[in-house]
Amino acid sequence: METAAFIDPRGNTRAHARELLVRTVDLLLDHLADAASRTPSPEPRAFPNFFVLPETPLTEDELFERAQFVLRQSRNLAHPGYIGNMESMPTTMAVAGTMLMAASKNNMLAEEMAPFLTDVEPAVMRWFAGRFGLGANSGGGMLACGTLANLQALVTARNARLTNSRNGLWGRQRSPVVLASESAHTSLQKAAMVMGLGTSGVIPVHADEHSRMDIDDLQQKIRRSRDAGQEPFCVVATAGTTITGNIDPLPAIARVAAEHGLWLHTDAVYGGALAFSKTHRSKLDGIEQSDSVSFNLHKWAYLATTSSMILFKDIGAAHEHFHVAAPYMNAASPSKNLGEFSLQGSRQADIIPLLLSMQHLGMAHYARLVDTRIELAEHLRRGLEQTQLVEFPGAIDTNIVCFRPHKSTDAHCATLQNHLLKKAEVCLTLPHYRGQRWLKADVLNPFTDEHTIDRLTASLSTWECAS
Amino acid sequence: METAAFIDPRGNTRAHARELLVRTVDLLLDHLADAASRTPSPEPRAFPNFFVLPETPLTEDELFERAQFVLRQSRNLAHPGYIGNMESMPTTMAVAGTMLMAASKNNMLAEEMAPFLTDVEPAVMRWFAGRFGLGANSGGGMLACGTLANLQALVTARNARLTNSRNGLWGRQRSPVVLASESAHTSLQKAAMVMGLGTSGVIPVHADEHSRMDIDDLQQKIRRSRDAGQEPFCVVATAGTTITGNIDPLPAIARVAAEHGLWLHTDAVYGGALAFSKTHRSKLDGIEQSDSVSFNLHKWAYLATTSSMILFKDIGAAHEHFHVAAPYMNAASPSKNLGEFSLQGSRQADIIPLLLSMQHLGMAHYARLVDTRIELAEHLRRGLEQTQLVEFPGAIDTNIVCFRPHKSTDAHCATLQNHLLKKAEVCLTLPHYRGQRWLKADVLNPFTDEHTIDRLTASLSTWECAS
Repeated sequence: METAAFIDPRGNTRAHARELLVRTVDLLLDHLADAASRTPSPEPRAFPNFFVLPETPLTEDELFERAQFVLRQSRNLAHPGYIGNMESMPTTMAVAGTMLMAASKNNMLAEEMAPFLTDVEPAVMRWFAGRFGLGANSGGGMLACGTLANLQALVTARNARLTNSRNGLWGRQRSPVVLASESAHTSLQKAAMVMGLGTSGVIPVHADEHSRMDIDDLQQKIRRSRDAGQEPFCVVATAGTTITGNIDPLPAIARVAAEHGLWLHTDAVYGGALAFSKTHRSKLDGIEQSDSVSFNLHKWAYLATTSSMILFKDIGAAHEHFHVAAPYMNAASPSKNLGEFSLQGSRQADIIPLLLSMQHLGMAHYARLVDTRIELAEHLRRGLEQTQLVEFPGAIDTNIVCFRPHKSTDAHCATLQNHLLKKAEVCLTLPHYRGQRWLKADVLNPFTDEHTIDRLTASLSTWECAS
Repeated sequence: METAAFIDPRGNTRAHARELLVRTVDLLLDHLADAASRTPSPEPRAFPNFFVLPETPLTEDELFERAQFVLRQSRNLAHPGYIGNMESMPTTMAVAGTMLMAASKNNMLAEEMAPFLTDVEPAVMRWFAGRFGLGANSGGGMLACGTLANLQALVTARNARLTNSRNGLWGRQRSPVVLASESAHTSLQKAAMVMGLGTSGVIPVHADEHSRMDIDDLQQKIRRSRDAGQEPFCVVATAGTTITGNIDPLPAIARVAAEHGLWLHTDAVYGGALAFSKTHRSKLDGIEQSDSVSFNLHKWAYLATTSSMILFKDIGAAHEHFHVAAPYMNAASPSKNLGEFSLQGSRQADIIPLLLSMQHLGMAHYARLVDTRIELAEHLRRGLEQTQLVEFPGAIDTNIVCFRPHKSTDAHCATLQNHLLKKAEVCLTLPHYRGQRWLKADVLNPFTDEHTIDRLTASLSTWECAS
């Protein structure tokens, strides 16, 4: 059997390549199909000389020992008690689709490097834009993360409102600024820094007690920034804040944006999945007035890391404002090379696992996953309220519940996090928000049920007794 | 057997999940292990209703029919005659590693989302930085493409030389500019546009007859741009130009950069692989003086799309200049969350397939792939010269050979491209360069041999006779 460094196109290494790939399948099934029997958050261990890049190959046993170690040191996302970070285990076809993506090596940079998928991705993006009600001229593209989606939105907004792609910002009298809730994601600060506005180019708008943008403060901040000689060009609404999953008042923000001629970008990186649900879709009312929307499928849509998109109400104009030609590529005119309209150049075909996963489950299944995860979060919230032991940073809008024991310190919260992991096998995170730490449950996991939630609530009570 | 939408953590869907994953393995082996029997560039075909996102699931046969269609419409990279775009078939362990990456769903954004790999990736990046001689304080991070790597380099350069991450560029008297060869990649124009400099913020430096930067013109352009009131802060050298694979005179550019206090970024996205080879490493002499280097592994290092990195000579300073905190994350101080120092937020663990692929082949195998591909390109060049039928845009520095028949039109070149595909089963690309089209052979394919090359040369001669 020939060594399958590569899959030989004449079949000579096929048997060995199959052995390697099926061994990988079995390795990951041994691990993932047994996830409930291990702790949701593994203890860190050492692997001496894990990282070597030797002249001669490692043996395949050495390779698979390392691969197994990586699996065992990863978060145990599939454990029913894992309701930690804003992330979910991937679907089976997300894994299969990613393998096909790697093997077929389409590159979304250019039509000749992704000849069929170059037509498929824009069609799928139009479908998503339609779900958000962005209208007949909408469309978009996939990107490697929500941070990049937000950056491409802000760059497009800036070019559309203030300048063009050729001339840049030089010589303008007033410094461009963006307004966003103080609870918005830091990717906006990063985008402003990259764009040369500096992180201070994002003006924080007060968020109310439910972490939703305060419209009066938005009005005031726009006025003040203009008085101070700045030039607001964009307001960012958040549908699903990073810590608490709350949703800004989208219709009111849209009115303010229109009144002041500002680009409206909605960061629906997290909350966009509500659009799958008939029951919860209305929470996104107003999003249809956005000029751009960012949305991540590796969170509440169970794709692998990463699967993100940026959508525009007017895709033609968005392309025009962002376009940088790649004259070395051979393509129809006007160019069909997606890389000319994207923040990225080379880009993997995330569209393959996206379609296979969604077609395998069906959209009704996705809707159920949204509905039932919200029901569970509400169940958790009620259970926690009944203990009368904890306080909350506000109402819940999605499936995220943050809490902390009354009159506790950050150190107490950390102890409680550990207690819940050990006693209830529930893995929560401990984000910093409004000056203190909170325990955060983000109920995405498809295998989490009421028993898990009730175990959490019960363990909280025993901890209170013990402490 | 339960339906395996997900891999059940208690094993209930294991058998079905295995069936889906092994079926995927066999689908891609049926396709790739038979690649030599199909044309290197498939004819476009239609698949009615390929894109549907229905409420109820498709059958699995419908799914796999679609998956097979995607494979068949993709470029046939594994065919020994595919020597087209700057891309290569992936190694077997690149495919296996990507599957593990998807299944384990590490997210390089934060330590708690990628607990073990957060330490591994920086160590591997230091190893690569060492290969480029960047010194004891060097390091870097992976990114989703070379375009992003170049953008992060230029943003870091700008922040380091002109401003800081908080304040941005406002209020500066002189507009910042970057200098790069006219043969450099358009990702630099894209970066300048994103950064608010506009595409005109990249000043093109003349490239000589071998597509290498003209140092006298660089000196002159720096002086002229200063005289015109601009503020040059960075010069970009290219090691492996996009069309012809040539290498700028790195030591001379480094001297000029030092003389003028400019940040030196080397775009080694393509040519960086020369560092694997004892024979060809010296072509990169001078790269060790770079402040930053970008390098793609999905080209000459046979990873899947994508696998890119940005490396810095002083990683501590680079981090400081780029850092945007994610206060919601729980991490040691100073932060170990890689996302705070990266253009990306969420980021897949490309480090898994990188290590598995390189450990499976061994670095000596990678060196051989570099050496033998260059030998083949030189063999092609000699064969083409002997026909006396074609002209070249200059000398070759790597493994890329561009040519066009004497006194031919662009239309002739397109006809010849098609002739070579049909008669010699060789797939070349047809980039636009210096005002005209060229046939381009990029010899990356590990299965291309002298027979393939000789078939190309022979077919060229018969075409000339016929035309």
